[in-house]
Amino acid sequence: MSKSKENRLILVCNDDGIFSKGIRALVEVAQRFGDVVVVAPDRQQSAVGHSITIMDPLRAQAFEMKNGMTGMAVNGTPADCVKLATDQLLDRKPDLVLSGINHGSNAGINIIYSGTVSAATEGTILGYPSIAVSCMDFNEEADMSGAQEAAARAVQFVFDNGLPKGITLNVNAPAGPFKGIKWTRQGDSRYTDEYIPRKDPMNKPYYWITGRLEILDEGPDVDVNVLKDGFASVTPIQYDLTAYRVFKAMSEMEL
Amino acid sequence: MSKSKENRLILVCNDDGIFSKGIRALVEVAQRFGDVVVVAPDRQQSAVGHSITIMDPLRAQAFEMKNGMTGMAVNGTPADCVKLATDQLLDRKPDLVLSGINHGSNAGINIIYSGTVSAATEGTILGYPSIAVSCMDFNEEADMSGAQEAAARAVQFVFDNGLPKGITLNVNAPAGPFKGIKWTRQGDSRYTDEYIPRKDPMNKPYYWITGRLEILDEGPDVDVNVLKDGFASVTPIQYDLTAYRVFKAMSEMEL
Repeated sequence: MSKSKENRLILVCNDDGIFSKGIRALVEVAQRFGDVVVVAPDRQQSAVGHSITIMDPLRAQAFEMKNGMTGMAVNGTPADCVKLATDQLLDRKPDLVLSGINHGSNAGINIIYSGTVSAATEGTILGYPSIAVSCMDFNEEADMSGAQEAAARAVQFVFDNGLPKGITLNVNAPAGPFKGIKWTRQGDSRYTDEYIPRKDPMNKPYYWITGRLEILDEGPDVDVNVLKDGFASVTPIQYDLTAYRVFKAMSEMEL
Repeated sequence: MSKSKENRLILVCNDDGIFSKGIRALVEVAQRFGDVVVVAPDRQQSAVGHSITIMDPLRAQAFEMKNGMTGMAVNGTPADCVKLATDQLLDRKPDLVLSGINHGSNAGINIIYSGTVSAATEGTILGYPSIAVSCMDFNEEADMSGAQEAAARAVQFVFDNGLPKGITLNVNAPAGPFKGIKWTRQGDSRYTDEYIPRKDPMNKPYYWITGRLEILDEGPDVDVNVLKDGFASVTPIQYDLTAYRVFKAMSEMEL
């Protein structure tokens, strides 16, 4: 991690697409640390999880925006963007993959559904230090100043210390300024009251997801609780899903 | 888990859709253990990961097939199906969620991209004992007899012992008969040589995913290696992605 700022390449992706305020906010942070290239979905891709496109071809379109942001827009998911960028589109390997800033929290069980987190996880799988950043406000014009500061501190941490193999940082921040920044774990939670049943104009039924996040974990070091208290959270996550806490006991039982 | 077979309800889902051989093979196994209801995607949904549908409405269409399978086909992802089934479509709560049998392995890093696994994980999140089952053969007419036996043994295990909170079983089997069944962990692996760049008839570039699975973990208790040796594998997985193995050390470092 001894490269100077001038030699670093930072790949920025997201799941809200290239027109979101959040990706521009993250590019501004990334530019303080090195050269930035954006490879991101050409449209909204929220809640796609770690979806990848295998049944259809992908295309990448270069863009230059009035706000100065340049990059490639891809007709795929966040994980597609990171795979395609590193395999085909970039002429050198990135020193960091940054995903976000997502409009909406990716704490608790939201991590599982998050396209933002999956882009960073994909970066980790491919061997690049990777960070996902989200802001708790869904609003298009959300105040992301705090999320930007949390992102900058996480990026500085990674360039100073590196990351252990297989580990991604998942950063969340409240809208606006935060009280401090804390290491957290993913809080157990789930959605309840999920679907509203309705009838269409032909009187046929359909269902639209809604849902209320139920927090099942009152720990003080839990991401969702820390955020509620006005702090930013940083959770180290991994893509090895093996349940090591029960593995030994279960593996001694007969199948 | 003391319910008799007559009182059990088993929800079956998959990601290859209701017309696949694999879901029929899993229904046959499930019928030995209780009443079965199928709620599954109306079309192929491979590699959608833990994607859920939030920007569009969902619909559910009842079907009865010539082969005797009945259920509801949903225009959504595997995780959508489990959420919608348990929230709206079923008149009682399932005793077990079974997902598969997937045409293709969901071992190693494939777990991350898998719609099959995500349906089972969603079952776990919602509080139901859940099992994902996959067969290593992509062929539509794959011999799933071994995968069926592995599924039956995993189901019997769950009805005999229950599952710890937050734990899903991820079962994989070779095509045809297997040598034995082993507890495993998710093997570290990744795809390399991922995209083939081509030109379309208008001479514009596109990219199609391909990729070769590179196994980075030679452990004898690793899913991908056990399968290569002709055994079926059962990996307990969790949706808490917190990297506990590094959490304490990292949480003592300054952010």
